[in-house]
Amino acid sequence: MKIVCIGSGNVATHLAIAFKRIGAELVQVWSRDRRSAEILAALTKAKAITDWKELDLKADCYLIAVKDDAIPEVAAHLKDVSGIVIHTSGATDMKVLAGSPAGYGVIYPLQTFSKTKAVDLTQVPLCIEADQPQVLEKISAIAHLISPLVSEASSEQRRVLHLAAVFACNFSNHLYALSSQLLEQHQLKFDLLKPLILETAQKIQSSLPADVQTGPAVRNDQETLKNHMALLSGSPELLNIYEVLSDSIKKMHL
Amino acid sequence: MKIVCIGSGNVATHLAIAFKRIGAELVQVWSRDRRSAEILAALTKAKAITDWKELDLKADCYLIAVKDDAIPEVAAHLKDVSGIVIHTSGATDMKVLAGSPAGYGVIYPLQTFSKTKAVDLTQVPLCIEADQPQVLEKISAIAHLISPLVSEASSEQRRVLHLAAVFACNFSNHLYALSSQLLEQHQLKFDLLKPLILETAQKIQSSLPADVQTGPAVRNDQETLKNHMALLSGSPELLNIYEVLSDSIKKMHL
Repeated sequence: MKIVCIGSGNVATHLAIAFKRIGAELVQVWSRDRRSAEILAALTKAKAITDWKELDLKADCYLIAVKDDAIPEVAAHLKDVSGIVIHTSGATDMKVLAGSPAGYGVIYPLQTFSKTKAVDLTQVPLCIEADQPQVLEKISAIAHLISPLVSEASSEQRRVLHLAAVFACNFSNHLYALSSQLLEQHQLKFDLLKPLILETAQKIQSSLPADVQTGPAVRNDQETLKNHMALLSGSPELLNIYEVLSDSIKKMHL
Repeated sequence: MKIVCIGSGNVATHLAIAFKRIGAELVQVWSRDRRSAEILAALTKAKAITDWKELDLKADCYLIAVKDDAIPEVAAHLKDVSGIVIHTSGATDMKVLAGSPAGYGVIYPLQTFSKTKAVDLTQVPLCIEADQPQVLEKISAIAHLISPLVSEASSEQRRVLHLAAVFACNFSNHLYALSSQLLEQHQLKFDLLKPLILETAQKIQSSLPADVQTGPAVRNDQETLKNHMALLSGSPELLNIYEVLSDSIKKMHL
């Protein structure tokens, strides 16, 4: 299978390397930034291109992993290709690829990628969608090459998944950041919280999060809630977050 | 070393078993609830008691792991003991134990315990405090028996740690619960988010959370923020949480 990778950021890098590893041929890596294209091309034995005129039109699959707002512009350059066009965005409707002559669809990897940290893609859920059943079949086969966790999701469902991921991951990470600031202000090391953070994430791998909720709000422990709010009286922003989330916990459980 | 365990809940169970495992002698387990005292006593080859009159006054250490608001009442029954009195609460001042004749202090394990899930206590940070240097030395030695991660924290620092743990863990877990509800409403499985949740918690084991923040708020991606808020327009509670946390992320990073 011949793949052209459009983009050279975190998602592009992890996917391109995963496809290369299972034996796919990465023919080209396109990026606006030549240096970045060359780095990923070198890693995957592909050719780096920055000019659309150089695009190989005969690949089996054009994998778009660029910023969401750049997808329409990229898609406009793929109107003459003979392969399937696939984007990888959680928040972008599949229809942005309409007009791709050989069909189009989505492979959305539900994971957070950093260039410096290896991710085992075989553990990453891939949500797929396609414009027609035959293309869905092909995209499913392509996705299964890198992960067994392949499931269908419509553009609307994918939007909800993306939003749910913001709650579960982006917001959780920010709560970690707020707690690390709080500890720093009191000469305490964030290291102290790391095992607890990991255990909290591990617990919900086998239990429903609502079933393992702990803390003063779910116990309706007024004394501790009052003490915590008093401790936060000098930080209106943290106090507001504390109240909003504690109220939400009470609402869910009481 | 002879230990009397006061309490038979999650924390009491994990600590008593850990001390038993390293060779300490659990002489008694006290609980208001006989059945619960008997279960933990059987696990640790101790004697179950419910009547304070039966309390062995000659143990080396009285470990209190009961609900925060029950600690003063329990402490009042320990005025004639010859061993150190130690509570295990994050939110309770050490002084609640004042009057213990052989000295007193705290061992606060920073972890979330469920009876049904084993926790490796050697990976759990223990924050200790004592009323006097010689007692601190003894408590430090006792704590080191079950974990190498022992550090000192004053009652005020422990309060802050407990509060920070609420942000990093109780609130994160609630965000997991909200996202699982959101997915359920759209016929999507919470399983899809589990690898992402775990990776988010793993990432901050070696990076500062503020340095690895991702998502639309930190990118100031107005388009996605607008779309997410539109998706939440029917859920005022989630919308409010979304706005409060997104604003807090922007404030920290922009």
